[in-house]
Amino acid sequence: MKVILDGMGGDNAPQEIVKGAVEAAAEISDEILIVGIPEEIEHELKRNKYRGEQISIVPAQEVITMEDSPVRAIKRKTDSSMVVGLNMLKDGEGDMFVSAGNTGALVVGARLILGRIRGIDRPALASIYPDTTGGRPNMLVDAGASSESKANNLLEYALMGSTFVEKVWGRENPRVGLVNLGTEEGKGTSITKDAYQMLKSSHLNFVGNVEGRDISKGVCDVIVCDGFTGNVILKLTEGVALSIFKLVKNSLMGNLKSKIGGLLVKSNLMTLKERFDYEEYGGAPVLGVNAPVIKMHGSSTSKAVKSAILRGMPYAQENVVEIIKQEMLDVEEYIEEEEE
Amino acid sequence: MKVILDGMGGDNAPQEIVKGAVEAAAEISDEILIVGIPEEIEHELKRNKYRGEQISIVPAQEVITMEDSPVRAIKRKTDSSMVVGLNMLKDGEGDMFVSAGNTGALVVGARLILGRIRGIDRPALASIYPDTTGGRPNMLVDAGASSESKANNLLEYALMGSTFVEKVWGRENPRVGLVNLGTEEGKGTSITKDAYQMLKSSHLNFVGNVEGRDISKGVCDVIVCDGFTGNVILKLTEGVALSIFKLVKNSLMGNLKSKIGGLLVKSNLMTLKERFDYEEYGGAPVLGVNAPVIKMHGSSTSKAVKSAILRGMPYAQENVVEIIKQEMLDVEEYIEEEEE
Repeated sequence: MKVILDGMGGDNAPQEIVKGAVEAAAEISDEILIVGIPEEIEHELKRNKYRGEQISIVPAQEVITMEDSPVRAIKRKTDSSMVVGLNMLKDGEGDMFVSAGNTGALVVGARLILGRIRGIDRPALASIYPDTTGGRPNMLVDAGASSESKANNLLEYALMGSTFVEKVWGRENPRVGLVNLGTEEGKGTSITKDAYQMLKSSHLNFVGNVEGRDISKGVCDVIVCDGFTGNVILKLTEGVALSIFKLVKNSLMGNLKSKIGGLLVKSNLMTLKERFDYEEYGGAPVLGVNAPVIKMHGSSTSKAVKSAILRGMPYAQENVVEIIKQEMLDVEEYIEEEEE
Repeated sequence: MKVILDGMGGDNAPQEIVKGAVEAAAEISDEILIVGIPEEIEHELKRNKYRGEQISIVPAQEVITMEDSPVRAIKRKTDSSMVVGLNMLKDGEGDMFVSAGNTGALVVGARLILGRIRGIDRPALASIYPDTTGGRPNMLVDAGASSESKANNLLEYALMGSTFVEKVWGRENPRVGLVNLGTEEGKGTSITKDAYQMLKSSHLNFVGNVEGRDISKGVCDVIVCDGFTGNVILKLTEGVALSIFKLVKNSLMGNLKSKIGGLLVKSNLMTLKERFDYEEYGGAPVLGVNAPVIKMHGSSTSKAVKSAILRGMPYAQENVVEIIKQEMLDVEEYIEEEEE
């Protein structure tokens, strides 16, 4: 397959992006097309002593920055690495687009250039979410593609997330949970109450409401919420986890006894901290658009770029977009039958 | 002053409630009126060998359970400890009501029996929120009194929370932050965007938007959000923090070297964990009603009950309700002047 990589997006572009591409290329036989300012990409390829044939450069002279307004950037910066890359994906010149650039612009660009899957009202960002009890990570959707969501959007997120987790992660019959104020049916806002009923009557493996204290405990494979709540959950978890690791570390340096103890436990703590390391996880798929797009963390290092490419490939290889399309057609037929 | 205590509310009532009252009485000279089933309260007082005069019993034969529907419970269970206690507070037979009972019922009961402060559309639950970087705790409002909030509600939460933190906690000019998707002005939902403008033009010390990763880092004294988000933030923080402490503990037991290290660092970790211990903090005030009400954690132990009583007393002593009333009148005048 051909991976289209946004060479100019993110805080560490193009350095870490190109380095990550070189590292990924060493492990796969697929092609990587880096879109961006040719001289800069070329320079980085040289710095990484890359001389292979797997990686090639596609010129794009503009850059969409983190400060750019999403809609305006997509419409005006037509020669940006993001817009050029998305257009290549649309035209079949590659199979997947990976970017660490402006999240809002990437979601808007994917929607405008690739188009939404029929039946999907709002595309969503599906982020990998750690299990703080030490289990395997789960998926949080929507992680912030939209700031407001209606009940049917939450159902769409659940359908898409469940398909992705089943097809790309290989988990059978993924458990879907709805973020809510409490576990009981009938809790929450008018939107979560309606979404509960929709999820309950769907074919999904809906395990009910999930409240704050259980979100991080691996009680479901797909955690469904609106993008505002999802964004808060994701960043809060990262903030709390990293603060506590730091507190633990400082506390271990408190006195001589604990310092000696600290040295003895250091490697165990490092192993633990890695579980909360987004660099290991790969990127977050943009779900609900007509081709595979992966969003990387804005401050991605080469390691994160490599993970996003390698771990994102099944999004294209397993035809997840086609499967979601088919699912939405089935839902449509089901609704029509119900209405008759 | 006279503290009215709900003897029957919460998972550990009446045992831990009465024990906490006895422990609190030993440290203050104020009266504590325990409302509940007299034989049960009497029995617990005897078990705690209490023979003083500070604590007395007010009979109420019914109990509002955690499963009761809030509005129905308040309207029908008129001889419950909660309804009797709130009526006593309304009638001036005590200065503050403290309960570990059904949160929804307590908020509804406070609103219906005590009435809202003029100008306050929605009362709020103001919870103490830990600073995971190790600083002093802050206040989160609304922690779940309402599941949906409009922009003016968020402004009310900010006004009330700021007053409480200033008058009861003694922090000058408290910093107010708005939970949002990102730090930039113009981020978020239509509600947070409007609230941002209202907060910006208020007399409050508004420090702007606070995103997920900073919420727990002590960047503001009053963290403002809708009750749905507040409930998720509060429970998620607790869930993540406790999971990580457990993971750290388990990781320290991994091998002999780390076991020895673990023993050496144990006391430091315990000190650290206490910072996340709600029992130390006291209860959460219900703000925006015409008299002081404090909500304790449903699973409060005697230690938590004692903290809630002792740390809640300034809510009554400092006339916070009167100050909020005056503030709302000032806001009203200000709005009228603006409109002229």
